[in-house]
Amino acid sequence: MSIITNEGEQYAAMKPAEFREIVRRGEYKGNTVDVCKGRARFAMAVVPKEYALDFFLLSQNHPSTFPILDVTEPGSPHPMKVAPKGDLRTDLTNYHVFINGELDAEVHDITPYWRDDLVGFLTGCAVGFNSALEAAGITHRMLGVYNTNRQLAGGRLHGTMRTSGRLVKSEDVVRTIQIASRFPAYHGAPFHVGDPAALGIKDIYQPDVFSSHDGSPQAPDEVAMFWGCGMSLKAVAMGSKIPLMITEGVASMFVSDMREAELAVIA
Amino acid sequence: MSIITNEGEQYAAMKPAEFREIVRRGEYKGNTVDVCKGRARFAMAVVPKEYALDFFLLSQNHPSTFPILDVTEPGSPHPMKVAPKGDLRTDLTNYHVFINGELDAEVHDITPYWRDDLVGFLTGCAVGFNSALEAAGITHRMLGVYNTNRQLAGGRLHGTMRTSGRLVKSEDVVRTIQIASRFPAYHGAPFHVGDPAALGIKDIYQPDVFSSHDGSPQAPDEVAMFWGCGMSLKAVAMGSKIPLMITEGVASMFVSDMREAELAVIA
Repeated sequence: MSIITNEGEQYAAMKPAEFREIVRRGEYKGNTVDVCKGRARFAMAVVPKEYALDFFLLSQNHPSTFPILDVTEPGSPHPMKVAPKGDLRTDLTNYHVFINGELDAEVHDITPYWRDDLVGFLTGCAVGFNSALEAAGITHRMLGVYNTNRQLAGGRLHGTMRTSGRLVKSEDVVRTIQIASRFPAYHGAPFHVGDPAALGIKDIYQPDVFSSHDGSPQAPDEVAMFWGCGMSLKAVAMGSKIPLMITEGVASMFVSDMREAELAVIA
Repeated sequence: MSIITNEGEQYAAMKPAEFREIVRRGEYKGNTVDVCKGRARFAMAVVPKEYALDFFLLSQNHPSTFPILDVTEPGSPHPMKVAPKGDLRTDLTNYHVFINGELDAEVHDITPYWRDDLVGFLTGCAVGFNSALEAAGITHRMLGVYNTNRQLAGGRLHGTMRTSGRLVKSEDVVRTIQIASRFPAYHGAPFHVGDPAALGIKDIYQPDVFSSHDGSPQAPDEVAMFWGCGMSLKAVAMGSKIPLMITEGVASMFVSDMREAELAVIA
C-alpha cells in the first residue's frame, strides 16, 4: 500500500503484549504501521500535568485531529484503558522529545525523561480503519502527511494543522467515507475531499512532512481525500513552544490491546 | 410521548435566539424539551476553572454519559461553538446551584453567582435524537430517570450514574439502536437493553430521580432501553461535594443554535 508499510510485517500476526515486550527489550526499532494486525495503534503526547487541561481544550476544539482514547494518571506510564500492562516510556519503537518547541532528541526509550508530573495522552491514528477498508475490498494509495493552511488551538497550545492524504478510486469514495465515519477514534470521516490547494497544499507528490506514496501520479478516476493526523501533535509542540512534549517517532505509534473494530461507534 | 413534553410546545417553531431572548426576559420558565424543534439542547455544568481538568477526565472516562459539546473561556458565559450570542447565566429557564454537594438554590438567573473563574460545559442530551426517531416513524415511551448501581469518576469528581429509560417496541429496537448510534453527542447508543434489575433499578414504574411515563405498564412487545443521562451531573455535584457546580434545572436544557442533525457522526 505504501513504502512505509512493509517493515513491521514480520510482526503482523503477533499479540500486542508480545510485540511490546520485544520493543521494550530494544529488539525492534522500526515503524508500527503493519504490526499486530487488527489492533488499534495510537499517536502519543506526553506533557506536564500543568498542560493537561490545555491538551483537553485542544482536543475539544479539534476532535477529528486529536480524538483522545486514553489519559494516564500523573506520573504513571500505564494507559489503563487501552493497554494496562503497556508502558509509554519503553513500548514505542521511536520517540521525539520536544523541549521549548525544538526537537531535542530522537530516542527509543524515554525513561530518562520521565517525571512524576507527566501525563500521557493517546490519540487516534487513521491506520485504524485500514482493516475495515480492506475487508470491504477497498484499495487506496497513501500519499503522505502535509502541512495545511489551517491552525489548531486550545488553551496555551497551538500549531499548524497537518493532514494525511490518500488517493481513492471514484467508485470507492462513498464507501470509504461511510466506513471511516464509523470510527471517530481514528479521525472519522475525511475533513476534505478534492482539490489539495484548498488546504494550501501546493504539490501532492511532495508531502512536506512525510512521504509514503508510490511515485505514480493521480489517475483521472482517483479522488484525493484528507484526514486529521496525529503528526499535528509535533506541529503543536513546535508552534506553542511547550516546555516539554514527547511524541511517538515517525510512524511509531503505540500498539494497544484494543481491537480496531471495538472502537467503532456503529459496529 | 410523556408528561413533561407538553409545556413548551407553544415555542416549538421558534428560532433559538428568539426563544433565549424570551427566557432572558423572564417570560418563560418551563421545561425546554419541546421548544425550538430540531435544535440541539444540552445539559450544563458550570464549575470553577480549578475543576475544569477534572471535568474533562470525567467526560473522558464516561463519554456516553458526558459528551462535551462546548466549553466556555473562564469567566465568559458565551458558548462560542454552539450559540455564540447565548448567555449561560440567563438563557436557561431553571438552574440548580450546588454548594459543597448540597442543592443550595433553584433559580431562573445565575448572574448573582457568576465569577471570573467559572467555566461552563455543555453536554449532550438524549432528546437530541428524538426527531430522527420520529422521522423514521419510531414511537417510544419515556419512563424517566433512575439512579443506577454504577459509579462515575474522573479526577476529583465522582457520583452515582443516572440513566434515562424508554420502552421501545420489539420491532423498533434495531432501528432505534442504529439511529441513536449516529449521535454520540446525544449519548449515542443505549448502554443497556433489557432487565432494569441489572442496573439496580427495582421498579421501572417508580423512577427515583424524575418520572415522565404515562402510567401504563410495559407491554409484552416492548423492550426497556437505557441511555446515559445529563442528570448524572447533579449526582456528581452531590457525590463529590465540589465547592460550586451549577446545572440546568429539571428538563431545562440550554437551547443551542445547532441543528440536531448537524451533530450526527454519520449524516
